[in-house]
Parts: sequence; structure tokens; C-alpha cells
Amino acid sequence: MSNTKLKVAIVGASGFTGSELARLLLNHPTVEISMITSESHVGKPFSDLHPQFFDRLDIPLASAEEVSKQSLDVIFLALPHGVSMDFVSKWKDSGAKIIDLSGDFRLSSKEVYEEWYQKKHTYPEGFESAVYGLPELFAEKIKSAKLIANPGCYPTASILSLAPLFAKKLIQEDSVVIDAKSGLTGAGIKANATTHFSNVNENFKAYGIAGHRHTIEIEEQLGSLAGSEAIVQFTPHLLPVDRGILVTAYAKVKGAMDQDSLTKIYREFYQDKPFVRLRNQAPGIKDVRGSHYCDVFPVWDQRTKRVIVISAIDNLLKGAASQAVHNMNLMFDLPESEGLTQIPLKP
Amino acid sequence: MSNTKLKVAIVGASGFTGSELARLLLNHPTVEISMITSESHVGKPFSDLHPQFFDRLDIPLASAEEVSKQSLDVIFLALPHGVSMDFVSKWKDSGAKIIDLSGDFRLSSKEVYEEWYQKKHTYPEGFESAVYGLPELFAEKIKSAKLIANPGCYPTASILSLAPLFAKKLIQEDSVVIDAKSGLTGAGIKANATTHFSNVNENFKAYGIAGHRHTIEIEEQLGSLAGSEAIVQFTPHLLPVDRGILVTAYAKVKGAMDQDSLTKIYREFYQDKPFVRLRNQAPGIKDVRGSHYCDVFPVWDQRTKRVIVISAIDNLLKGAASQAVHNMNLMFDLPESEGLTQIPLKP
Amino acid sequence: MSNTKLKVAIVGASGFTGSELARLLLNHPTVEISMITSESHVGKPFSDLHPQFFDRLDIPLASAEEVSKQSLDVIFLALPHGVSMDFVSKWKDSGAKIIDLSGDFRLSSKEVYEEWYQKKHTYPEGFESAVYGLPELFAEKIKSAKLIANPGCYPTASILSLAPLFAKKLIQEDSVVIDAKSGLTGAGIKANATTHFSNVNENFKAYGIAGHRHTIEIEEQLGSLAGSEAIVQFTPHLLPVDRGILVTAYAKVKGAMDQDSLTKIYREFYQDKPFVRLRNQAPGIKDVRGSHYCDVFPVWDQRTKRVIVISAIDNLLKGAASQAVHNMNLMFDLPESEGLTQIPLKP
Amino acid sequence: MSNTKLKVAIVGASGFTGSELARLLLNHPTVEISMITSESHVGKPFSDLHPQFFDRLDIPLASAEEVSKQSLDVIFLALPHGVSMDFVSKWKDSGAKIIDLSGDFRLSSKEVYEEWYQKKHTYPEGFESAVYGLPELFAEKIKSAKLIANPGCYPTASILSLAPLFAKKLIQEDSVVIDAKSGLTGAGIKANATTHFSNVNENFKAYGIAGHRHTIEIEEQLGSLAGSEAIVQFTPHLLPVDRGILVTAYAKVKGAMDQDSLTKIYREFYQDKPFVRLRNQAPGIKDVRGSHYCDVFPVWDQRTKRVIVISAIDNLLKGAASQAVHNMNLMFDLPESEGLTQIPLKP
Repeated sequence: MSNTKLKVAIVGASGFTGSELARLLLNHPTVEISMITSESHVGKPFSDLHPQFFDRLDIPLASAEEVSKQSLDVIFLALPHGVSMDFVSKWKDSGAKIIDLSGDFRLSSKEVYEEWYQKKHTYPEGFESAVYGLPELFAEKIKSAKLIANPGCYPTASILSLAPLFAKKLIQEDSVVIDAKSGLTGAGIKANATTHFSNVNENFKAYGIAGHRHTIEIEEQLGSLAGSEAIVQFTPHLLPVDRGILVTAYAKVKGAMDQDSLTKIYREFYQDKPFVRLRNQAPGIKDVRGSHYCDVFPVWDQRTKRVIVISAIDNLLKGAASQAVHNMNLMFDLPESEGLTQIPLKP
Repeated sequence: MSNTKLKVAIVGASGFTGSELARLLLNHPTVEISMITSESHVGKPFSDLHPQFFDRLDIPLASAEEVSKQSLDVIFLALPHGVSMDFVSKWKDSGAKIIDLSGDFRLSSKEVYEEWYQKKHTYPEGFESAVYGLPELFAEKIKSAKLIANPGCYPTASILSLAPLFAKKLIQEDSVVIDAKSGLTGAGIKANATTHFSNVNENFKAYGIAGHRHTIEIEEQLGSLAGSEAIVQFTPHLLPVDRGILVTAYAKVKGAMDQDSLTKIYREFYQDKPFVRLRNQAPGIKDVRGSHYCDVFPVWDQRTKRVIVISAIDNLLKGAASQAVHNMNLMFDLPESEGLTQIPLKP
Repeated sequence: MSNTKLKVAIVGASGFTGSELARLLLNHPTVEISMITSESHVGKPFSDLHPQFFDRLDIPLASAEEVSKQSLDVIFLALPHGVSMDFVSKWKDSGAKIIDLSGDFRLSSKEVYEEWYQKKHTYPEGFESAVYGLPELFAEKIKSAKLIANPGCYPTASILSLAPLFAKKLIQEDSVVIDAKSGLTGAGIKANATTHFSNVNENFKAYGIAGHRHTIEIEEQLGSLAGSEAIVQFTPHLLPVDRGILVTAYAKVKGAMDQDSLTKIYREFYQDKPFVRLRNQAPGIKDVRGSHYCDVFPVWDQRTKRVIVISAIDNLLKGAASQAVHNMNLMFDLPESEGLTQIPLKP
Repeated sequence: MSNTKLKVAIVGASGFTGSELARLLLNHPTVEISMITSESHVGKPFSDLHPQFFDRLDIPLASAEEVSKQSLDVIFLALPHGVSMDFVSKWKDSGAKIIDLSGDFRLSSKEVYEEWYQKKHTYPEGFESAVYGLPELFAEKIKSAKLIANPGCYPTASILSLAPLFAKKLIQEDSVVIDAKSGLTGAGIKANATTHFSNVNENFKAYGIAGHRHTIEIEEQLGSLAGSEAIVQFTPHLLPVDRGILVTAYAKVKGAMDQDSLTKIYREFYQDKPFVRLRNQAPGIKDVRGSHYCDVFPVWDQRTKRVIVISAIDNLLKGAASQAVHNMNLMFDLPESEGLTQIPLKP
């Protein structure tokens, strides 16, 4: 990339993903933020929506219509599910690479999407060109992709929990339970009963039991690793914290197992993956907050003959914005860690 | 009990269980708190330790030695595991009924206790006389008991989650996963790294993976209901809240099942149990905070053929202090709900 | 009241004040909740709005139109400012006593109201009949009142902080600074940017600087105690907690002062006031949470010659619902503490 | 500094300040962390104490005795008050510049120190050479200092709140009230009753009323700006959050004032100070969390004729670690903002 900077646009400024992208890209040495869009706030300074950027990123918000008028290298779509697809269709030949943070191109086909999202898909051709942007699994494909389907937050933590075992075809069919817990930012910036402070604070509850749409994203990726269908029991819960996902994954394995073998399988699978840290004790979500890390801790329970894997990520970063930047780094042949070296903010 | 009040002692004033017992008993119409003990604070007003009681319960703390000098109806032991057993042994013939909130008499035998608690048991005779004080299962036995082993907090929520299915022998062996989450008060009032605000706040983590001692308490009770051994995968997690346990229990069942049948099984099992509320949506821990309720929500997942049950309790109440008062009510033939009608404090 | 119960209506079921009134009144021995109204939820069970009441208070919500069709003893208005006045006007001769929890009748006149609330007042006659329902100051007037203006949450804590000194005319004019901090429930149950979890959690900020409408309520009451105008600098802040107000009040006094004299003034002023607890150390908001107490701690700073008073209340209780019940008790000659003996829920 | 890096030591690894220094210095382009010391953990990897550094900073902890054996450019003392002074005395001629984050050299003299800290000072000579490290006031002196007394967290926010007015001698003597609120990390990493989660969570209280030792630090600096004695009423409070200080400062001014004049005074005073952001609305602590910013918002209340200034900082950063790095940058003629460009982490 020599000494010119990548020109990037962030489409969708109002949400948490948009502001986290801006935070990372503003300090990324090879990036220049060319524009940020928000249809409902055109003309306002970005920092009006997110005052933490006061005096740092005060550029006026543009309409998405401006995107095609500029010469851009990357377009980040920080938009809701069902909205991204139209922009991808519109800008697919614009010359810019597109990283879509919504769920619109994460699944295998229009049919699967429409069943789980209960929404008509208007650009099914995208499923063929889109690459699932999980760098630990698909780095090579990502490097040459023009459209990235940036993974969901729960799927990122869930897939990284069990990928080493699925890749070795060691998982007993139908034995997988993924009990997941997420901070409130996963529910978005929109004010409603779910996000009201008094419904979240000092509270904890399950939701989407037996039907959350991230289930199929996890099943498709894990099944693909194993070369066979995967069935996963996935239950998300809402934590009274801003950020973080902790996944507790349970599975029965085929054949003999012990702690050393288990650790070895994970160590080999994640060697040379700079952002997966194989921990020697159970990680908490605060151990990764504000960083691009996924901390993983696999345990063998000899008494029950079950594997338990704990994984922790920051849902807004490894589960969204920093994963998108990681994908950009790969797509433009930049150092993999560029702009992603933040140490977790703890406490 | 006509118009005389029960004379009760609370042994162990410094912890959360002691203060919650005091809070409930002070407003219980048939109870008089005769004494509260604390070896390290003898002579101090109780409200010095727990300032919320200022002007309400300022009686000086006594030494446990004073207990045997008084004529008491009930002794509540709010002591750590390993300490209660000596007092039970000492006071077993004092004429007072004993409700022990520790884990010292919850298991089936000295052998099981010593294996899971890694501690020598000095009063094994207690295992025979102790009744497991879970009123929804053992009300009749409790009525005539002299020594109550008040259940653990996690076991209360876990057992009530799956008891209806175990009682009908419907659970597939080896399929049970109990993923449990508790507020910080479960870790006690002692100041250490685990209870430091900055380790808990905005954090969430698993602990006691594959070896927590409540596992065996759950297994023994559920197994006993089914008349066969039960194996349970139990994983506790620490929530950044003061109070509350949420249990997410997973199991495969034998034979056919559907949502209606499942609901019916639970409805029948818990009919006439005033403190188990069969909910029609997933309960949060705040729905029961400050109350004696256990809210239960069973779900059938037709896709995975698995039962998922969510249960919520206040760990300090249904998981400790109010359960103890409930047991006292039964033992003294008082109305079951007396002193326990608090509506959950929400928000 | 012999053995018949007071028939009460709660008008406005959807907010926090409505649900807290229901919680208190349901366990009040001399009360029967005859109806609860909510225009937007007519016909729904009350527990649908507030699931903590599931199985305890499932009565269908009525329209406010039903109120006049029933024979009621008390009507509690748990409505927004500007809405209550019309109902007071409509029901003033219904035979029921009215306790209005809004700000519509707390000030001295239509003119003052319209200046500070920026809203037209449609029932100015109410200002004459309304009694300011702060039992520590106006118990006698409350006993014979037909319309109670239940005090604001901040004013309750602020006035009780300084009343003993104003009543003795000891405050230097223009020296009073009241720095107040409130839990989020003070902002109401409505979902908006202010109440979004991520704007509140781990955050803290001031609002309404130099212009909050509770300023005039405090000034009028304190000025009236002293028999002269009072000027108060009042700054509210938003705490990342559900409940609680802590007021830190600063003032210069006229004449000599020392700690003993200060304590004596407060002790005499609040003797025989069962719900003001004169503390001997700085109270926290959790020391009063879930209770009707106002904890007060006055300090004399010899170095700066200033009085600092810390006061803590539960904004939903002493700052709203329990204060209303206290007023009801006085109006119907019930024991002052009936239904209000809850001990603070801590932790 | 050409292409060689500064060699730095962090003395005192176990606390929050130590770990925040490590986090900043690890990503600082001109710094190499040569050693980190902890007497109680010699030999352990740094990341054992602070697991967020796992795989990033695993160097073994050294004894402070090793410090003098190395050639160092800077020594950061992240030690408790009363401990730093001995090390300063020992290493003053070592060739390394010393930045002391304790309170040992912040005041004007041994006498003042001993009165307010109730502790004997063993190296009074240090008061003469130490420069008070508040870059907005003392950048020039800092550049040539060998010993920096890094300001306290409360004093940083308090002084920056009122410095523009004191510098212009506009403050009425004896009118200043500073009501300050801090996150729990200000209380340190030590586990005790004060830092127990259940004493902090959902709680809020004042402490150190009328006697906190930061009072004198604020008074000395503000008085020095005005060239006369300053008297300040300072009251700190404990917020249930990890990080952040919000100061609400009140003062009467001499002569006429209005909002425009006030804003102008602040704008002029802080022009060219890159880390003070003059805000146009009240800042919350989350607007600066994880960053080096101090956000300031001055308000003129025409009704009460009082100035109210709100300031927000991250107590661990602008109130400690990033301020220390800022001082280092100045001392070594590095770009003022190097390593300090983090955007606040929100939410």
C-alpha cells in the first residue's frame, strides 16, 4: 500500500458498530475515513451522535447517496439486517471492497436466510461471492474477497469454541449445547423496553430460546468444518454489562479424550492465530474488553466424559468492528494486527 | 401456636444469610428474635454490622455460648460449612429445633460429604436425622423434623427446574446440562479478590467447572426422585449483580414430548406449591428479587428434541433465608406463607 | 377504621410509582385495591405490565372512566405532571380523598407553576385546598386534607436535610448549595436515549443545571419554614443505579456553631418522627433501599465554618409511593407506620 | 529522540496505576518497558497479576533492588503514599528521571504533608526539586524537571475546573464548594469492606467529609494561581462504577459575569491544551473513559449569581497513568500527544 492511505466509508453512523469502527479506523495508520453516513442525521457532526468523539471526529454526516460519488477503497456497512443487501447490490461494481457487518450474507442461501430471518432476500447472488469473514478459519479466501459477510457476535465466540474439535470430526452428533451470555450493546442502540436501564441492571434473563437466528449460522459453519450436518442447542442470555460475550459450550466427543490431548488439539489449531489466546484458566469478559482478543479455555470433565469450552470476546470488537478491520487488513495485504493492538481495558 | 411467639436464635450474624434471616424474622408475626450471635463482634449492636437495621434491630450480639442458656424454639445456623456440624452435635438435645443453612447435612453420608467437601465430618449421626429442607418435595418430613439441612442456593433452583421430569423418570441418563449463574452475594461477605468490585463489575465468568460441590447435592436429590443414579453437568458462573440465580437446564427426555405435555407435567407437579410460579415467558432474576418465589419456565425444542428449563430465585431468600423460614413455618404448623408474602422488589 | 378496609384506586398503572404503590398497598392490612387504571392497557392483567406481580395481582386494568362509578375511599394519582390536574378537578367532590403524586399542586400558585413547569394550569383552585404531604412537617394539616400534593423525590430529601436549620432561621441567605444524585428510576419507565442502559451504566452526569423545577419546590418549603425567601443552588445528577437519592447539602450558618449543637438541633427536630433516622455516620443509598426511611447525617466543618448534611432516601418510596401511603395513614387515622415497616433490602 | 527508545521501569506492579501505565507504555512508540517490580510477586509473570496482559506482557516481575542495576531513562513510582519517598531519596542521582504517582511530593512542605497525611516525611528535600505535574499549568517547568509529583485524581479534575477563574483572581474567597464523585478504582485494588462488590454496587455515599487530604492539594494549587490563600469545601463520594471522576464545582465570582464572558475565559485559558475539551453540554464520565481527556463545562447561573463547572476525567488516566505519560513526553521533548490518542471507550 506504499504511503497512500485507504479511503474508507462507514455507512450507518448511529449505532454502536458504526462508532466502534470509527474509533478503530481513526487510529489505524493506513486508513483515512473519507465519509460517514446517516440518513436521519445528514449534516450533523458525527460527534453530536457520539460525544466521546468531540474534537476528534467532527466531520458532517453524509447521505449514503454520496458514497457512489467518491473513489473509495472500502465500504463498511454498519446497517441492520435486511437493509445491507440493497446497498451491496447497488455498490458491488463500484470498485470498493465491501465489508457487511449485518447478517445479510452470512448464511449459505436465500432459502436458509428467509427461513431464519423471516424476511425476503433481494440480492441472492451475493451469497455466492460473499466470504464468511472469520480470519481464523478463512484467511486465504478473505484475502481475495470483494464482499465480506462479517460474522455475528455469538457465532464468532461459539464457532471458535468448538472449531478445533469439529475440524477433527470428534464431536458426537446432537450433543452440543451452547449457553451464551451477552452484554446489552448486542441489543443495539435503539431505546425500547429491552434496553431500558431498569430492565437490564441487576437483572439477567434468557431470550430467543430454541429459535435464535444465530443458531443456523453456528450450525452451518461448524457443520462445514466437520463435513457433516451439525445440530446445536443455542441459548442466548442478556448480561447487565455493556460489552462482552461469554460462551459456555458443552459437547460429547467420539473416542478417548483427556485434558492433555484436548489442550494439544486447541494449541495446534490456534497456533499462528494472533488473536486467539489459549488461556490456562477460565477467562472473564473483562479480560478481553476493548480488545480484538478471543480467549478460549477448554476443559475435559473425566467424570461426565464431556468437553466444556469457555470463550470470551468483546461483542462490539471481535464480534463486530475489529473483526471487520481484521478482514480489511487481510484484504489489502496489511500487517494482520495493524490498528488492532489495543490491550483489554480492565478494570 | 396460640398467642405466644416462637423464640429464635440466629447463630452467625456477620454474613448475608444472617442479616436476611433477621430481616424476615423481625417482621414475622409469630416470631421473637431472642438472640443473635457473632464470636468476633460480641457486645456490638447488630446494626453496627448491618447499618440498614439502624434503629430497628440494635440488640447486642452474643456469644454462641449463650445459646444453651436460653429456652429457644428454633436455632438458625448461618455459619460456614464445617462449622455448623459441631453446633448441631452440641445442641441436638437442647429442645430447640435446628435449621442449618450450611452444607454440613445436605448430602447422604459422611463418605460423600468428605469426598466433595474435602473436609472431615465430625458428626455423621446427623445425616440420619437431618431432613433436606426443600418444602416443594419434602413438606411432610419437614413437619416432624428436628434438624433441617437447608438446601444450597444452586441446588434449590436446579432441582426445582427438573424435579417434575425426574419424578416421572422421563430424563435420559447422562443428558443433563445445568448452566447456572449467580449474583455475587453467593460468594459471601468476606473481602477478597473474588469479591472486589472491579473484578465483578462489568465482568462475567465461570468457576468451579467440572467440580463444584453443589453438583453432588443436585445429583443425589434428582436421582432419589427418579429412583436411579443421576449424572449432571453443572457449571456455575458469577453475575455482576448482588442477588439472584438463573438456571438454564437442558435435558433429553425418554419417549415422545411436546410443549403442551411438558407444561402439563409441570403444572401438575407444582399445583398447590404457593411459591413456585409456572411462568408463561422466560423469567429474569429481578422478577423474584427480594421474594421467596421460584419462577419456572419449561420449553420444548421440537427441532433438537430437548427440554430447556429456566428457573429464577433470589439466592439469599428461596436459596437460603426465606427457605429456612418456610421450613420453620412447616415445623411449627404455622400458615405456610407467614412472613413470606413480600412481592419482588423491581426495579 | 374498625374492620372494614379502605377501598383504593391507583390511577396510572404503567409507571414505577404505580407499581410501587401496588406493592405496598397489596400487603397493607387495612387496604383493598379496588381498581388500577391504565388507558393504554385496558383489560390486560396488571401483572402483564409488571411481571413481578405474576400470580399476586392479576386484576384487569380499567379505564379511568370507571373511577367515578365506584365508591372509593382514596384515589392515588400516579400520573405525569400536567395530567393529574384534570382528574383532581373532575373527582374533587367524589367523596374520595385524593393523593396526587405528580407536581401539579406542590407549588404555591398557578403563576409559580406556569413559570417553572412551562405548562398552563387548568385547575388553579386546587392550590388552595392541596396540602403539601411531607408528614415530618405537616402531619396535622395532612390529617384533615382532602387533596394531598405528594412531594417530589429530590425535594423530600433536600427539605429534610435542611429543615431543622431553616426552622430555626439559622441559614445564611444565599449560601445553600444542594448537590443531589438520583437513581435512574427518577427518569421514569419511558424508553428513550436517557434511559438506555448504555447511557446510564458506568456513567454519571449532571442535568438540569441551574434550572431544574424541583428548585422552586425546595425553595418554597424551606423559605416558608424560615419565614423568609430562600435561594437554593440545586444540581441533580444521574446515578447508574435503579433506586436511591443522596443529597449533599452545604450551607453557612448565622452565629456560632459546633458539632454537638448541630446534632442536638437535628435530634430535637426529628424526635418522634419514626422514619427519619439520625445517623452517626454517612449513610449510603443502599442503607434505605426498599424502605420508607430518610437517613440524615449533619456535619459541622470547623475549618470552613460550613454545615454539610447528607441525606438518603429511596426515591420511589420516601420520595413517592411510601410517602403517599404514609399520608393515607394519617388521613384515615391509621397507625402512622402501618404497611411501612419494611427493612431496607441490602445488599 | 532519534531511533532509540526510552528505557522505563514501573515500580509497583500490583495496583491499577501500575497496570494502566503498562497498558499505555506497551503501545507507546518511543518506549521500551525494561522492568516492572513487585516485592510480593518477584519472578511471577506480570500477566499473572493482570490477566488482560496474557500473551502481551508476560515478563517476570523483579525486585525494586534491580532498578539501580539498570540504565534507565524514566522510573515510574506506582506506590502507596509514604512508600515512594524512600525510593525517590535512593534513586535521585541515578540518572533516571522520576515520576512519582503517589502523594509524597505534591504539597508545598514537610509540615503541610505531615499535618494532612498524618505520616512522617523522610525526604523533605524532595519538595524543592519536585515539579507538580499538571501539564496544563506547568508545562515549562515539567520539561526540565527531574522529579515529578504526579497530581492526585480529584485535584486534577478540581483544579482544571476552576483554574481559569482563580488565575484571573475572580473567585470570591470562601465561596468554593467542590462536590466530587469517583469510581471505585480510586479506592485501590486491595480487598476490604470498602471495595466489596455488595458495598459498592447499587450504592452511593460520601466519605472523607470535611477532611479529605486532597483538599489541601487543591487549595495550594488554586491559591498559588490566584496569589492568595484559597479555601475549598471538598466532599468526595464513591460511585458504583470502575472508572471516572465527575467534579461539580460551585463558586461566587467578583464583579459582573455572564455566560459568554465565562465561556470566553475558559476558551482562552485552555486554547492550545490538547487534552482539555471545552464542552457545550454537561459531560458524563463515560465521555472520557479510557482516554486522557478532561472535559470541562462551565455554566453561569444568572438567578443565583454563581458559577457551576462540571469536569470529567478517567481517574486512572488523566487522574494518574496517562498524566504521568504526558509528563514523560514533555520531559523528553516528545510530541505531547504521543501514545495518548486513545478515543474514549463508550459504551
